[in-house]
Amino acid sequence: MSLSLYYAPGACSFVAHAALELAGADFEPVLVKLHKGEQRSPEFLALNPRAQVPVLVDDGAPITQIIAICLHLDARFPQAGLLPVSGLARTRALELLAWMNNTVHPTFTHVFMPAKFAADEAAQAAIKAQALQQYRGLLAELEAVAAQRPGAWLGGDRPGVIDAYALTLLRWGGFAGIDPTTLPQTWALAQSLANVPAVARAIERERLKLNVYQPTAA
Amino acid sequence: MSLSLYYAPGACSFVAHAALELAGADFEPVLVKLHKGEQRSPEFLALNPRAQVPVLVDDGAPITQIIAICLHLDARFPQAGLLPVSGLARTRALELLAWMNNTVHPTFTHVFMPAKFAADEAAQAAIKAQALQQYRGLLAELEAVAAQRPGAWLGGDRPGVIDAYALTLLRWGGFAGIDPTTLPQTWALAQSLANVPAVARAIERERLKLNVYQPTAA
Ligand SMILES: N[C@@H](CCC(=O)N[C@@H](CS)C(=O)NCC(=O)O)C(=O)O
Ligand SMILES: N[C@@H](CCC(=O)N[C@@H](CS)C(=O)NCC(=O)O)C(=O)O
Repeated sequence: MSLSLYYAPGACSFVAHAALELAGADFEPVLVKLHKGEQRSPEFLALNPRAQVPVLVDDGAPITQIIAICLHLDARFPQAGLLPVSGLARTRALELLAWMNNTVHPTFTHVFMPAKFAADEAAQAAIKAQALQQYRGLLAELEAVAAQRPGAWLGGDRPGVIDAYALTLLRWGGFAGIDPTTLPQTWALAQSLANVPAVARAIERERLKLNVYQPTAA
Repeated sequence: MSLSLYYAPGACSFVAHAALELAGADFEPVLVKLHKGEQRSPEFLALNPRAQVPVLVDDGAPITQIIAICLHLDARFPQAGLLPVSGLARTRALELLAWMNNTVHPTFTHVFMPAKFAADEAAQAAIKAQALQQYRGLLAELEAVAAQRPGAWLGGDRPGVIDAYALTLLRWGGFAGIDPTTLPQTWALAQSLANVPAVARAIERERLKLNVYQPTAA
């Protein structure tokens, strides 16, 4: 049994990173410098031809996709409570995880990398503007979900992967000019999560500042 | 125990529809006419404020998100083999399911509904063109996955949700001018799946033609 995680600071790989720490897993963290293009090195492409983090390597097998990594770790560390164990509570958590992954996260990608979606610059500006507006709406939806959470955490009594994803998405909002403190339930959740010792280790390793919002830049 | 599925013919809800039939579930199919805007009716919005199919209603609880629905049904009908049961085979299937759901499916949404991503028409044309090119590449990736499948089906020995998603994505390609027969492994898989009696029932209920590609329109 050996586990390594390829991650980039502040990227969506934080979800997998937090999961490993919450599970108390013994793993090797491997930093991938996205801004230096290390995700396109031959070594990394051999692990993930799609040139993205996170990649979890479990006994030599590279596993991509946040959702697959979360479910893999949940099965491997069943005591960790990364997701509610069963029943409708589990389904609700998976619904939230899927929505974060297929809707909120890709909407931010449109804000951050509009060139992925159109070649010309005017189109990119239009994409970015529309995505930013949608992202505000999606974080407001997340805030409503956080306000109605079934316990201290989004999945109930234990911190898990959906909380880590919420923290990540809220943090990204700061880069896009969305003040996290205007979403008080999600902001409180993110702060509490950051104080869980296991998660604090991941935050420290990634050297993350939780609130990256800059009023003057907004 | 009562199950209903809100679906639209040929939409991504086909994945949930096929899953219910493969599981031999007793369920009520409820047709939602997307082209008539029924997804925005007050009744439907009460089930899913995001105005999308599929919605599975299990004993009164509406469940959205294909991935959550698939995992919910997999847990409820463990004998159905909707996903491989455990281990790396399960993780690989979940990886494929997540990629289909967060990458391939949304790329088609850019081809089909570019207005979701930018307000002005020139930007929409640019988005559509780039997404179509990406979609071709993604179906080629899917073809490579299908060529290396671990058994008769994408998950191994039994037809499941990832096969149903592959059929759907390949079929959508036809609307976008991609001839499914140029992707012979995926096309063979889709044809075999359509011949599985349980899946044939879903196809018949949705009145789906498997190959919608029109050479002249391409
Ligand atoms: N569908 C993937 C998405 C992964 C993803 O978006 N990764 C981003 C970081 S958040 C990435 O590695 N981007 C590479 C780049 O920026 O070149 C998943 O769910 O894991
Ligand atoms: N993230 C959702 C996406 C569902 C989705 O894209 N549904 C489409 C049909 S394929 C829909 O209902 N669109 C509504 C419309 O066209 O107005 C999921 O994974 O279930």
